[in-house]
This record gives sequence, C-alpha cells and structure tokens, in this order.
Amino acid sequence: MAQLRIAMAQVNPTVGDLDGNGRIVLDHARRAAEAGAHLAVFPELVVTGYPVEDLALRNSFVSASIKATHALAAALAEEGLGELPVAVGFLSRRTGVGERFGQPAGSPQNAFALLYRGRVEVTSAKHHLPNYGVFDEFRNFVPGETLPVVRLHGVDLAFAVCEDLWQGGGPVAAARAARVGALITINASPYERDKDNVRLELCQRRAREIGATVGYVNMCGGQDELIFDGDSLIVDAEGELVARAPKFEENLFVTDLALPEAGAVEGPEGPVDGVTVVRHTLSTDPVPAYAPQPPVLTPRPDPASDVGEVYRALVVGVRDYAVKNGFASAIIALSGGIDSALTATIAVDALGGDRVYGLLLPSKYSSDHSVADAEELAKRQGIRARTVEIAPVVAAFEAAVHLDGLAAENLQARVRGTLLMGLSNQEGHLVLATGNKSELAAGYSTLYGDSVGGYAPIKDCWKTLVWELARWRNAEAERAGEVPPIPENSISKPPSAELRPGQLDTDSLPDYTVLDALLDAYIGTDKGLRELTIAGYEPELVQRVIRMVDRAEYKRRQYPPGPKISSRNLSRDRRLPITNRWTPQG
Amino acid sequence: MAQLRIAMAQVNPTVGDLDGNGRIVLDHARRAAEAGAHLAVFPELVVTGYPVEDLALRNSFVSASIKATHALAAALAEEGLGELPVAVGFLSRRTGVGERFGQPAGSPQNAFALLYRGRVEVTSAKHHLPNYGVFDEFRNFVPGETLPVVRLHGVDLAFAVCEDLWQGGGPVAAARAARVGALITINASPYERDKDNVRLELCQRRAREIGATVGYVNMCGGQDELIFDGDSLIVDAEGELVARAPKFEENLFVTDLALPEAGAVEGPEGPVDGVTVVRHTLSTDPVPAYAPQPPVLTPRPDPASDVGEVYRALVVGVRDYAVKNGFASAIIALSGGIDSALTATIAVDALGGDRVYGLLLPSKYSSDHSVADAEELAKRQGIRARTVEIAPVVAAFEAAVHLDGLAAENLQARVRGTLLMGLSNQEGHLVLATGNKSELAAGYSTLYGDSVGGYAPIKDCWKTLVWELARWRNAEAERAGEVPPIPENSISKPPSAELRPGQLDTDSLPDYTVLDALLDAYIGTDKGLRELTIAGYEPELVQRVIRMVDRAEYKRRQYPPGPKISSRNLSRDRRLPITNRWTPQG
Repeated sequence: MAQLRIAMAQVNPTVGDLDGNGRIVLDHARRAAEAGAHLAVFPELVVTGYPVEDLALRNSFVSASIKATHALAAALAEEGLGELPVAVGFLSRRTGVGERFGQPAGSPQNAFALLYRGRVEVTSAKHHLPNYGVFDEFRNFVPGETLPVVRLHGVDLAFAVCEDLWQGGGPVAAARAARVGALITINASPYERDKDNVRLELCQRRAREIGATVGYVNMCGGQDELIFDGDSLIVDAEGELVARAPKFEENLFVTDLALPEAGAVEGPEGPVDGVTVVRHTLSTDPVPAYAPQPPVLTPRPDPASDVGEVYRALVVGVRDYAVKNGFASAIIALSGGIDSALTATIAVDALGGDRVYGLLLPSKYSSDHSVADAEELAKRQGIRARTVEIAPVVAAFEAAVHLDGLAAENLQARVRGTLLMGLSNQEGHLVLATGNKSELAAGYSTLYGDSVGGYAPIKDCWKTLVWELARWRNAEAERAGEVPPIPENSISKPPSAELRPGQLDTDSLPDYTVLDALLDAYIGTDKGLRELTIAGYEPELVQRVIRMVDRAEYKRRQYPPGPKISSRNLSRDRRLPITNRWTPQG
Repeated sequence: MAQLRIAMAQVNPTVGDLDGNGRIVLDHARRAAEAGAHLAVFPELVVTGYPVEDLALRNSFVSASIKATHALAAALAEEGLGELPVAVGFLSRRTGVGERFGQPAGSPQNAFALLYRGRVEVTSAKHHLPNYGVFDEFRNFVPGETLPVVRLHGVDLAFAVCEDLWQGGGPVAAARAARVGALITINASPYERDKDNVRLELCQRRAREIGATVGYVNMCGGQDELIFDGDSLIVDAEGELVARAPKFEENLFVTDLALPEAGAVEGPEGPVDGVTVVRHTLSTDPVPAYAPQPPVLTPRPDPASDVGEVYRALVVGVRDYAVKNGFASAIIALSGGIDSALTATIAVDALGGDRVYGLLLPSKYSSDHSVADAEELAKRQGIRARTVEIAPVVAAFEAAVHLDGLAAENLQARVRGTLLMGLSNQEGHLVLATGNKSELAAGYSTLYGDSVGGYAPIKDCWKTLVWELARWRNAEAERAGEVPPIPENSISKPPSAELRPGQLDTDSLPDYTVLDALLDAYIGTDKGLRELTIAGYEPELVQRVIRMVDRAEYKRRQYPPGPKISSRNLSRDRRLPITNRWTPQG
C-alpha cells in the first residue's frame, strides 16, 4: 500500500464570480499545502459556480471560464503551490466536433481539470448529464467520453463528475476496469430533506463495485433556489466510512489514506461502456512512510433533528441569496401570523437582527393580537419595526374604482406589496415574501400582493412544517436558556389572511393537516384522483384540491425563488403548461 | 404506382382538453372520410395538446391520454369511420422497461398511433427528443426505438414524429432502408420569424435522401408562449412541392398521390441506427384507379410581408391565450404611447373592439397628448375607455411612506398595475401587459407595475419592430380604405415613460435603433464584449447594455408569458441563474 494525504475543500462559490471563485480555490489550496496534502480536490464547476444554466450557451462565458482556469493554474504556481495537484470543476468546450442540430452550440462541457506545476495538466468532462428535477445538463452540455486515471505518488486515481457516480455504467464501469486505487468525484449535489444518507450509501455501493476507495467532495452554501449541504466524505474499498465533513458550512479536511500501489497493468484497451480510460503520470514513487493523522469524522445528529436541519438549510438559503445578490438588509411584512414570524426569525438568524426591518401593515380587518404579536416578535429579536395603517391608501383606491369581494381583498394585499417594494426601492432592502408551500400550491395568495419579494424563504415548507419549524426554533432557544424568538400566540392561533371580517383560512381551505398530506401525495408523488381516493381521501375533497393546484400554476410561476428542501418543488423543477384544461376524473 | 388520397388535418388542440381534442379529431376525420380520403393524419400529441411539459410525469395524465386514444378509436368506428386509418399523436408510456435513475418515472413517450376499425392498430414513439430552445423532451420522455411501416392499399407508409425528421439518423435512415413509398411525419413545430422555408427545405432534403414522398402535418394556433403556424405540406420523392396548407389557421386538405407499389421486399433485418422497422399490413390491394383532384397549393406571400406575418402570429397568440384560458375580454392601460396602442390594436383584431377595455391612467407627469392620443385610439377602434387620475392614490401612498427618485417613479407604475388587476378581478378581463422586448431585455420596466398582466402580446418584439408593426397595420387599413387604427402621433412622438417631468426613454437608454441591434446581437447570437466591439460598437456602450441585460434577469422571470416570434426569447427558452456576477470583460 502507498500513503496519500488528500485534502477536500467543501467550498461555497458564486455563479459567475470567476475572480472570487478563483480566490476561494487559491486560499484553500494554500491551506491544503500547509496541511501537507498531496492532492487538493474542489467541487464540480467551482470555477464558475453551479448551476450555470444557459450561461453555458454563451461562448464568451465558456471562454472566460477556460481562461480563468488556466490563470488559476498559473496563480497556484506563482504562489509556490505548483507541486500540489489541484482538482477543480470548470466550464469548458469540446473541440473538434461538428455542429449537430439540437446540440448546444459551441459544445460546452461540465469539465474536470487537474492543475499542476502552473498548467492545466489533465482534463475530462462529465459523461452522464442529468436533466430531471433541478438539472438541465443535457440541455446545456455535451457529454465527455473519457475517464482520466492519474498516477500520483504510485497510486492510480480516477476522477469523475457528480452524476457519473450515480449512474451504474460509463465512468464507474471504466474505473473498475482500470483497477484504480481510488475514484475521486467532484460534486454540486443539492440538499434534500430525508436524503441524509443516500449519498453515503451510494459511495459505499460504488466503492464495493469498483473495489476502490471513493472520495466525494461537494459544494456548500445557497445559490438561488439550491442549497448545497456539503457532507463531503470518503469511504474505503470495503465501503467503510473513513472521513466525513460537517454539513452546510465551508470546510477543508485532510485524510491520510493507504491505497493499493499501482502495478504495471495498463488498459483496459478501448472504451468501456462508452468511456475510454486515459492515463496520466504525475509521479510514480510512493511518498516516504509517515504517521497518518486521525481522519475527520463529523458525527451526524440523530434523525429527530431533521427539522433542525431544514431550519439550518433555510437560514443558509437566505444568507447566501442576500450576500450573493448584494443586499445588506431584508424587509418583511409582519402580520402577527406564523408565516411572517418564522420568515423574520430565519432572516434574523441569517443576517442579524440589526439587518432585518419589519413592516406592520394593519387594516380595518386586522385583529388587535395581529399588531401585538408582531410587535412582540420584533421586540424579542431586535427587529426595527414600523407601522403603516393601510386604510387611507385602500380608501383612495376605492374612491377611484369600485372593487368588492375578492377584488377588494386582493387590493389590500397589493397595497401592502406596493409599500414593501417602495421601501425596498427607497432604502435598498431585500423583500422577503412570507408565503408557504401550502398556500402557494393551493393558490391561496394574491398575485402582486403578498407574493411580492426577491426571495421566499419558506416557499418549499408545508404549513404544518412551518409550525414544526417555529416550535423547534423556540425549543432550541429554551434549551440554550434564551427567550423563544417567536411569540407563542403566533404559533397557536388559527391562521387567517384577515382580508375580511372574521376570515379564517379554514373558510377556503381544508384543515392544514389534511391539506398538506393530500398536497404532498399529489405534488410529491403525482398520485391521481383514483389513487388518492383508494388511499382514503374523500373524492370530492381530492378533486377540489387538485383543481386548486392545477389552477394556481400561473401564480406559482410569478412567485419569487426560495430555498428548495424537498424532492418536488412547486416551481423551478416542475414545468407545467399554463393553459391546462385537464382535471383528473378517475 | 398506386393511388392514395391523404387528408392532412392542421388543427388547434388545447393542452389537457382530452375531450375537446377528441372532438376535433372526430370532426376532421368525418370530413376526411366525406372527401374520400384513404388516410387522415393529425399533428403530434393532438390528443393531449402540445407542449405537455411536466404533465408527462403525472402517471394519471398518461393513463388518461392512453384511455382517450382508445376511446377515440372506438368513437371513430361507432360513427362509421372505422375503415379510415387515422394517424394521431398521443402521450403514452413504454412498458417493460425497468426504472432507471434519472429517467422520467413511468417512462412516458411522445407517441404515434394509427386508429383503425375501432382499435389502436399501430403504435410507436418519437426517437429523437429535442431539449433545446422551447423543448424539454429529453426531460419528459423516453425515446422510442421502432419505425412503423404500414402497408395501406399496397403502399408502404412510414410514420415518424417531428424531430425524427430533423435529425439525420434514426428513423430517417430506417425509412430509407425500408424502401417506403412515403414518410408521413406528425409535428408540433412552433412559428419562428425568418424561418418560413426551413421546413420546406428540410422535407425536400429528406425526401431526396429517402427516395420517397414526405408528408408533413403541423399544428396551428397559440398555446401559452408558442404559436403553431401550420404550413403543412407534401413533397414528392424528387423534392418537388406537391401540396401546402395556409399558415396559422385550421385546415383540412386532401392530396391525391401516386406512390410506388410495395413489393415483396421485407427488411431491413435488425435495427438501423438504433431504430427497428416494424411492419404492419392494413390492406395489400391498390385502390381502383380514379381521377385525382388538383392539390391544394396555398401561395406564400412575398418576403416583404414578413412584418405582416409577425402581426398575424401576435393576433393568434392573444386570441388563443384568451380563449384557452376562458377570458371573454381584455383590459389594457392606454398611455397614448406606441406600445399600448399596438397591444390594443392586436387585441381588437384578436377579440373584437367590444371585448377590449382601455384604462387611461394619467398622472401629474402625463402630457396632454398622452390622454388625447389614447382617447383617439379608443375612438377609432371602438374600445370602451375609462379614465382614472392616479394622483390621489399616489398621494395616499406618499403620505404613508417617504418615497422619492426611482422609488417614486416605480410607485406610479405600481398604482397603475394595482388598478388594472383590481378591475380584472372585479370584472373578469384578461390584463394584457404592454412591455416590448427592448424594455424587458434592458430591465426598463417596473416589477409589479407596468409588468403586471396575464399575457404580454409584444414581449418578443424589439421596439423598432413595434414601430414597424404599427406602420404596417395602419398601411393595411389604408389599403383597405379604412381609417388607420393607430393615431399617427402615437407612432411619431419620442417614447417616454412619463414618470417624472420631461422624461424620455433616451435619458436612460441608447437610441432604440442602436439598442435593438446590440440587444439582438447579444441575446440572439450570444456575442460577447469583444465580438461586439469588433462589430463596431463602442466598448463602453456594449458593457453598459450587457450589464443592463444581465441584471434584468429577475424582472424577466416575473414577466407574463407572451407569443414567441424569434429564435431567442428572453424568458422561457433562456434559463439563466438569477445570481450571476459575471460581466464579460473581454
């Protein structure tokens, strides 16, 4: 066996910020070298950030990424880090292929590079291009068809990109045939609830299949609707977990591995399952024996803290959306209800109380407790709150045009939206929308009203989860001996939009426990009327809810982005026609 | 040679309206039978409408489509049409394939069916799945791997779906190897400006390659952002145009063809380029000789009427969006400017003057001619107009919060948006947004202000095209001896948002002739700073415009859908990250 110290850099790049991302790589490579690493590994597309979406189709952006990657190799060498091989992901293009109808022009690739001695020494590209859920890669890239196997200090290391590990054939089969000592994968794999150990199990299975150590380095941080949770790890050839990074935060960890020394065996000859092994040699002699450090093995909390993990993801989402879009502060309409209370609490945890502004916008239908609960929330968290009565503005509209019923209800929400946006434009705050996934799914919101905003922190949380999150956050505070941030009354009172006298959500919607379960079954698993009826729901209720969901598509498209925490989101990863006359009948 | 009378039904289905689409097929099949056709052909996915997008991933929708297709076969037979083979597109699923990670669950397919004698006699599925531009098919479907070759009255006919004709390999190669008499393709191919003869040339090239007649039947009508322009056609084996339908409108046309009689030759053995030929026999004897009818050969207007064709596409887009979404009327804010004047004129041509409502919303910054021009427009076209002064409402907001500068400008636009939406909610009109593509690209609009609406008729028209369209429409009226619908002053005056005293668009934007050319080069062809500078633009201007465009992404995402007329739209077919720090520097 030969020893190797591998540094994995779980970092948080920003899409398009080539200079900033380059600095992140330089900083972490320096630290890796200081820690005595023989190899430093960064996530998929770290040079450009992920996802680049249709930026991949801009030739000038592809050129800039390639240029930045060469500049990075040079900068590493200039800083005296040239002897440390640094693995990065970057946007490249395939050369020497003809234009093909329907293929991305310029043949962009989701590529891998090994930077060494001031040069881009090895390159390859992702073979399997995911195009489901949040991924559009078949649209944006052309596939790579090689697997680089790099001999480093006498060990053969294969490198692959993200999805190439998830699919059974292609690079995995080629790595097995090439008898590598380890397979290192670079990833940009977004967080999803209830998927905590899926990646670990995948790495374990692949390690056993290939008969080699598998290293998995993932991105962290929020990028628009995606949250990358890190969770980088290494498993040995038997599938035993060797090292594991913390979740959600930047982390550089080194792991000392003892890997099989590469023999004289070359090959395989020709492509394996469409992928050709290309061998490179950096150094053949194993490093002199040294005393290994104990690996980093971040413990995972028990499953009961799943809600806590969701909360943490939401905080990261808000923090990075604000930071990456250049907002120093956020503004939120505080109604005294649970949605705005939780949204404000997440914002305070993300940005600090002094950067969160609350706007209380009572109308003639607002109950006394609405204002009192909102004021109490602001007081507990140090939120700067101001109150604006909307009645005079509503009256001015009603003097101009006659509106009643739903039109008059929507008017109040739109007056509030306009006030929020006005203060955002005037003072520079990011407006956070407070809608939850149940409302959004059912269309229980006002377009251009309560749906205004730049980011919607709880848009992927069912209402029942909103309550759970609020209770969890308060309990956490109590455990720490702090005042619970959310007033108990905001959690316990029956939800109401307060747009007409005595209005309750239950006037228009089923009880949230029933509604959320039904929505989750319809949206999360695409079950139809018959299956949902068999599952025990009233057929009339099912039809009513399905009709609500299908009709709300237009509003959902206009909703701000928000952190994704579930496998089936309502917007970005569901592309439905707006005009859809179909209502399932059986 | 054997004779065959083929009926092509260029129809306008609605996504999700399985019953309505079934009725369209029945009606046209009856007319085809009455015209003595031996085969009736309908467009791609006529049973479900196109595009189904992620509805394809709903198992219950796939089941409903399959059920509807079988019901349609039965209904045809019940009506005495069972002897007429009817070719349709429908959503189906592939059976007998295992779940594969990353593949659409339930294996939906974009399928072909030949309905005959009350049964679904033949099925196959699209092989090449486009996933560029407006298409998401690789995401939504799994590919088919067979080419059906049907012997009908002694002629071998191959059937393929849309993209299968555009790609060189696969079904086209298999059809050639199978020595068919004709290849019939069913399509849902959207309109694009400047692509008038691309489909004809494609059919001609393929006909020569295969050595067989090619029939091409396309959808017509608007569906959300897409407009299908029909243009169904037939070319013979030498590539000569035989028959051609009119554009944009529903049409059933029969064509008498003399096709090579099929011999005993079977084969090819095994798959050709991944596609296996599957043969079916409906009838082996040629029909008795009959006197052919002259074919329909709709003449194409000269290229100079390209602007007229765009205008027609926009009218179809508005008409079908309103009809398919159940709106009987539209409401438009009339500013006296060219954008709202053109939008209103399109709406009147689509829906009739009595179904279009105009809202004049002058502020203290509105010039006298604004109101006069808007009133003149309404008078000329029979639009019901009402005037609401926004000053009192703006004053009520300004009494509630302090807003100045851009925030105060946006406020006026949002007050207008709220009034439009209020009347839409109160009276049921579809709000038409009046923004053009130049504004939208440059971000020169107010989010939740002038951008509100359900549909944006001119969102894919550069400002310079807006003027051209207005002039074209007025000239058409003059040619017909009618009063030009658009007041000359709305066309000739310098554009202004009128949100502050004496404001002109040129305060913030370059001259539209320069801006539009630059935007078209940046957005249409993805040229970067260097290429645009080489093309002769001022580097500073280029950088300023690129920065505007890249920063406006968020607003564009929130913009209503609108008819697509160019190959590069700003929204649906460009998926950019919201957070994008990249500005091209070289």
